[in-house]
Amino acid sequence: MVYYAPRYYIIFYLTIIVLCVQFPILSTSQEIDPSRVRARELGIIIGSLPTGEHNAITDIPGVKVGHVTLHEGDSVRTGVTAILPHDDIWKARLFGAAHTIHGNGEATGIARINQAGWIESPILLTNTLSVGAVHDGVVRYIVDRYPDDNIILPIVAECYDGGLNDISGLHVKPKHAIEAIQKAESGPVVEGCVGGGTGMRCYGFKAGIGTASRVLPQNRGGWKVGVLVNSNGGRRHQLRIDGVPVGTALEDKQLKPGRDGSFIIVIATDAPLTHRQLKQLAIRATHGLARTGTPSTDGSGEFVIAFSTANVFPRSTDNGTFKIDMVVNWQLSTLFQAVIEATEEAIINSMTMATTTTGRGGRTMPAIPLDQLKQVMKQYGR
Amino acid sequence: MVYYAPRYYIIFYLTIIVLCVQFPILSTSQEIDPSRVRARELGIIIGSLPTGEHNAITDIPGVKVGHVTLHEGDSVRTGVTAILPHDDIWKARLFGAAHTIHGNGEATGIARINQAGWIESPILLTNTLSVGAVHDGVVRYIVDRYPDDNIILPIVAECYDGGLNDISGLHVKPKHAIEAIQKAESGPVVEGCVGGGTGMRCYGFKAGIGTASRVLPQNRGGWKVGVLVNSNGGRRHQLRIDGVPVGTALEDKQLKPGRDGSFIIVIATDAPLTHRQLKQLAIRATHGLARTGTPSTDGSGEFVIAFSTANVFPRSTDNGTFKIDMVVNWQLSTLFQAVIEATEEAIINSMTMATTTTGRGGRTMPAIPLDQLKQVMKQYGR
Amino acid sequence: MVYYAPRYYIIFYLTIIVLCVQFPILSTSQEIDPSRVRARELGIIIGSLPTGEHNAITDIPGVKVGHVTLHEGDSVRTGVTAILPHDDIWKARLFGAAHTIHGNGEATGIARINQAGWIESPILLTNTLSVGAVHDGVVRYIVDRYPDDNIILPIVAECYDGGLNDISGLHVKPKHAIEAIQKAESGPVVEGCVGGGTGMRCYGFKAGIGTASRVLPQNRGGWKVGVLVNSNGGRRHQLRIDGVPVGTALEDKQLKPGRDGSFIIVIATDAPLTHRQLKQLAIRATHGLARTGTPSTDGSGEFVIAFSTANVFPRSTDNGTFKIDMVVNWQLSTLFQAVIEATEEAIINSMTMATTTTGRGGRTMPAIPLDQLKQVMKQYGR
Amino acid sequence: MVYYAPRYYIIFYLTIIVLCVQFPILSTSQEIDPSRVRARELGIIIGSLPTGEHNAITDIPGVKVGHVTLHEGDSVRTGVTAILPHDDIWKARLFGAAHTIHGNGEATGIARINQAGWIESPILLTNTLSVGAVHDGVVRYIVDRYPDDNIILPIVAECYDGGLNDISGLHVKPKHAIEAIQKAESGPVVEGCVGGGTGMRCYGFKAGIGTASRVLPQNRGGWKVGVLVNSNGGRRHQLRIDGVPVGTALEDKQLKPGRDGSFIIVIATDAPLTHRQLKQLAIRATHGLARTGTPSTDGSGEFVIAFSTANVFPRSTDNGTFKIDMVVNWQLSTLFQAVIEATEEAIINSMTMATTTTGRGGRTMPAIPLDQLKQVMKQYGR
Repeated sequence: MVYYAPRYYIIFYLTIIVLCVQFPILSTSQEIDPSRVRARELGIIIGSLPTGEHNAITDIPGVKVGHVTLHEGDSVRTGVTAILPHDDIWKARLFGAAHTIHGNGEATGIARINQAGWIESPILLTNTLSVGAVHDGVVRYIVDRYPDDNIILPIVAECYDGGLNDISGLHVKPKHAIEAIQKAESGPVVEGCVGGGTGMRCYGFKAGIGTASRVLPQNRGGWKVGVLVNSNGGRRHQLRIDGVPVGTALEDKQLKPGRDGSFIIVIATDAPLTHRQLKQLAIRATHGLARTGTPSTDGSGEFVIAFSTANVFPRSTDNGTFKIDMVVNWQLSTLFQAVIEATEEAIINSMTMATTTTGRGGRTMPAIPLDQLKQVMKQYGR
Repeated sequence: MVYYAPRYYIIFYLTIIVLCVQFPILSTSQEIDPSRVRARELGIIIGSLPTGEHNAITDIPGVKVGHVTLHEGDSVRTGVTAILPHDDIWKARLFGAAHTIHGNGEATGIARINQAGWIESPILLTNTLSVGAVHDGVVRYIVDRYPDDNIILPIVAECYDGGLNDISGLHVKPKHAIEAIQKAESGPVVEGCVGGGTGMRCYGFKAGIGTASRVLPQNRGGWKVGVLVNSNGGRRHQLRIDGVPVGTALEDKQLKPGRDGSFIIVIATDAPLTHRQLKQLAIRATHGLARTGTPSTDGSGEFVIAFSTANVFPRSTDNGTFKIDMVVNWQLSTLFQAVIEATEEAIINSMTMATTTTGRGGRTMPAIPLDQLKQVMKQYGR
Repeated sequence: MVYYAPRYYIIFYLTIIVLCVQFPILSTSQEIDPSRVRARELGIIIGSLPTGEHNAITDIPGVKVGHVTLHEGDSVRTGVTAILPHDDIWKARLFGAAHTIHGNGEATGIARINQAGWIESPILLTNTLSVGAVHDGVVRYIVDRYPDDNIILPIVAECYDGGLNDISGLHVKPKHAIEAIQKAESGPVVEGCVGGGTGMRCYGFKAGIGTASRVLPQNRGGWKVGVLVNSNGGRRHQLRIDGVPVGTALEDKQLKPGRDGSFIIVIATDAPLTHRQLKQLAIRATHGLARTGTPSTDGSGEFVIAFSTANVFPRSTDNGTFKIDMVVNWQLSTLFQAVIEATEEAIINSMTMATTTTGRGGRTMPAIPLDQLKQVMKQYGR
Repeated sequence: MVYYAPRYYIIFYLTIIVLCVQFPILSTSQEIDPSRVRARELGIIIGSLPTGEHNAITDIPGVKVGHVTLHEGDSVRTGVTAILPHDDIWKARLFGAAHTIHGNGEATGIARINQAGWIESPILLTNTLSVGAVHDGVVRYIVDRYPDDNIILPIVAECYDGGLNDISGLHVKPKHAIEAIQKAESGPVVEGCVGGGTGMRCYGFKAGIGTASRVLPQNRGGWKVGVLVNSNGGRRHQLRIDGVPVGTALEDKQLKPGRDGSFIIVIATDAPLTHRQLKQLAIRATHGLARTGTPSTDGSGEFVIAFSTANVFPRSTDNGTFKIDMVVNWQLSTLFQAVIEATEEAIINSMTMATTTTGRGGRTMPAIPLDQLKQVMKQYGR
């Protein structure tokens, strides 16, 4: 026999909601450390294409980024980052594609992207064990907004931050995903130890979120490409910056090799590309990533998601067809170049903007020392 | 500034836990309707290979299945089904592979399966909007058991049950996933309107969970293949059973075409297959599925997950290598035949074992009428 | 040191050319046997959609088919079939996609189709060991027509006809590929033991080339889908026609099981589909194939190539983009149905139109007996 | 009516064969220029792992390489390179995998490699329009050796050498493929303008065949990895050597940008890897390639083929299974590193060993100037 007691649930949930409002686990952006700067401010110029206004994924009109940072007590060092391809991506589906460099990780929603050829969910980045919570958060966000049209397949990608973060504590809740979506905005993007990048590290240095963008020459279409990464992979000695073996130059023999990790890479463009063409852009993220030195180790779960803001899939049409603009294939090569440059630079930014962080068990992950970095670059002719 | 209030949380959660125990939303298996029988009891024999003892995925030694059925009030018609490839799959990784027939759906964890070549998570089936909750449940289950070794990437696949079920009510909770895992057992598998199949329907009839198995002749290796499906796709007129156009024979002009849906298919075998070979078995599920009539419509999210219980990936080895048994390729053809037969039969079982169900908004989905079915089969020479 | 003697070559080749003209290995279409008819003339109607005018791939405007049949002496039973997607496909690239059901075979050019998203070569079907010769023939055809713009990547797919044909004799020459292209025409397509299908067999019966087409209702776009197959797979007992177990009914215990084989499937449509959408059509050929009974055995090399005549890739554009028409995704489901029906029917036609053939080593492969076939169909209620 | 005249053919072919033997188009290796040296002799050390004995793919025991170079008159600058994974690869099938970085090219046989999981054909490299001729050559080689067991699916990969070579002249014949196979040997590999690399160029310099190898530390398994490339892609300004922007330093404003091209990469190892694991090695070739600077442009047809000599697929077994050794996944990371280092170095070797070449239409492609290269490397701190 079945006994169902909804009244009790309502009372308890209401109580909790009230108290959550009273005593929130605040999502906090840490103070921004003015001594941390982006690669370009250090004189590190990757490639030859010019950047967009903010040198960020948000240079693609319509794209927004929001962070919820959980930096609490001794060992909560995690969070959620939301990338919104469109103000209402659920209703304005854009062409999209996803590529797996190495699949020992999770990125939900990518079967749908590659099958339908479109993206219709915000993209959320968080830690490995919080994928379910964040997924649930996106579902609740959509169910709340669209009670009668909500078969959402959320896009949630993860990296492991269990070195600095009490990941088993499951501190990310569905509400943090909703909050990250709601806080998303255009303009400059906060980088380093924020959002999904709060507890991440790469190449033996503290890292996290990084971004960069490129603008193509007018005779190559004049389009923009923006990249945002969550950097969490690579060993110290592997690090290369613009080809310079920075990792060996800054090697620390006392640094214990940690668990191998991953990079999550999101690419936006306003070039009118189809799914097939976006897939090729996504594949080129590998080239940019490779230039920073990682071999994409066996443990890595490296996913790339690319979308174009140029065409919108209509929900219905008169005769079952619609018209789209499409780039001719030979124009893709310059877009590839843009993806590669922006990916490499975004990864460097994710390190130069991150700050030394102490977390779980008193472990400290140092930020890359900018003075020494400049010195090494100079020593190698830059 | 940040204010962190864990004490409050602990109190509220404790209260909730206490009250949940007192007033559970009981997971209930509905009464089993003795008038509903499996295909074979109706004289419908698919293919030529013999079945295993229970004609179920659990005929593969070590494989267990558990259901949590949420059939409450007027409109809760959903649940969770867990398939356990091994008693402790997290510690005893088995070779596995996943295949996407059509990707307009979600199956988390499959990038990992295809990258590592192994399966290390139970497989959970639920509704579309509960993927996050069930994912979170599996994480909590593993974190609880293995506080220090828990980077789990859960496998959760979904179908949409929003026709009969109040899917937007998000009634599936993390605890239901844990419960389904804990309840999993070997032996006969309950089919029809149970677990993840509670609210599903296919070919215009009520459906849900179905299973079947095959045993190869000794001179073909003597291995077993078991299949479990969650059936949720196809229109009435498309239905074919053993080649007989049952759907047109039982057509109901008043039946409104519903939303197109999907089939989730899980394959187990004790044949010593590698990832590559298991992938080929997974691909053959398409053949079995196709024979029931569906064109795998644009809206479908059809995923197949296959695993072999024959080899276990060691966690560590002396010299970095280990030995495995492996089937020679030409032996695969009979295994393909077994997959195709068992998939087709599992889908039929998922219908003949399901019962007429009324759910959300008073909608009723009729069970396939077994007497008429027998009549139609006879009319077509069976 | 190098000695280069082109004069000799010229003399010998000239002599050969002269004598080849004098004493040709004539490409012959065998007499057409009027007792062999198509499935529909036997009352076998697959599915529910109407056919096009010729019930052939050539119902798609612009598509042409040409055969060169080598049926010589005791043991030459082979040939080449060319499918031309467009009069000048090299200059008028069409959207295309290729799918591999099981890859133990060869289909050259498909990496290019899937990368560029277009098809720019005629599609040639021949035997396994003649892929190189036919490939060379297509190259020579293009080099001859376009001496300065000829980086062609020919599309050549094979099946093994070494049961009836002296395949090791390498009787197909580059010129046969050129001739098949040149002979290609619109209108009715000769089926059965012609062209690349001359020596093929399937389900223990003589087979070869088959074709069929479907037309969608106007409210589903009114588009056409045409399919052409080269049938060469399956065992006798597996054969199903419209769901009827014809193979077991016509089983011949004395028939020795031969080598497993493959099906090559070409799909044409005038629906404006992108590469991604055409790929999904190609995947649905599996469903049609599966319904004829084959499990796509380990030895099979089953490739599907699909193209749309609706959009042409421009060679150059003003600003690097162009406009295309594109079907909305939800319209695809009826196109899937059309592919499945036409594939199944094309395979049946490839058998009902083939004639009993004796070849290498005096081996005879019987045509499916049409009277018995009709009887069996009737017995099973059709 | 059919007239078949085999007698004439036999006479002419015999005459031709006799005269071919008398007046051969000799396959010639050009004089080796002693001023051209390998990267290591210039002090360029890529990565940290030690090389094998010859720093070549032939460091993997059993692997052989053979070149047929066609360097004739003003404009024949092409050839064939054969890589033999095993003395009799047709009978001793090895585990293999293929990966497509960008598919605007041809590599026959790769569907088979990825389906069967093994490699059973020598790997041939040639020019774009000679794929058919070389394919036919491999078929003839196998048919000749194994008249009754010869369903070979040859592996032939191409790059476009039509800048320096009269590619439309179709100078490569089937016999050249056979000769390259027969000439294959172990030990040092000739690099630069030989075999399939005779007419190739990359990064605005003359290039061709290059090779390198790595040996893993004993505590990482002690296995070897060898790579052989045919280099034919990239623009001058893109070139990076060990991270140094050599291309911009050696930029030549008068150099006209040529057609974009491709790299073909072959990987051999004695580590006991399965198909799935070899696929991951193949994917890592992208990382090594990317570090040399190319964005893998839209026009590229970049294929990677990897095989392991450690396990042999048996042709038959007692009970349908066999035992293999298999590396545990976590050991793969060091193998990835080896692939990346060897790929990068092989590409550099393909340039430093190539010589300035003049070909079709009097076009000259300069070799990379080694003195200047050393200077640039020094300038950038190496």
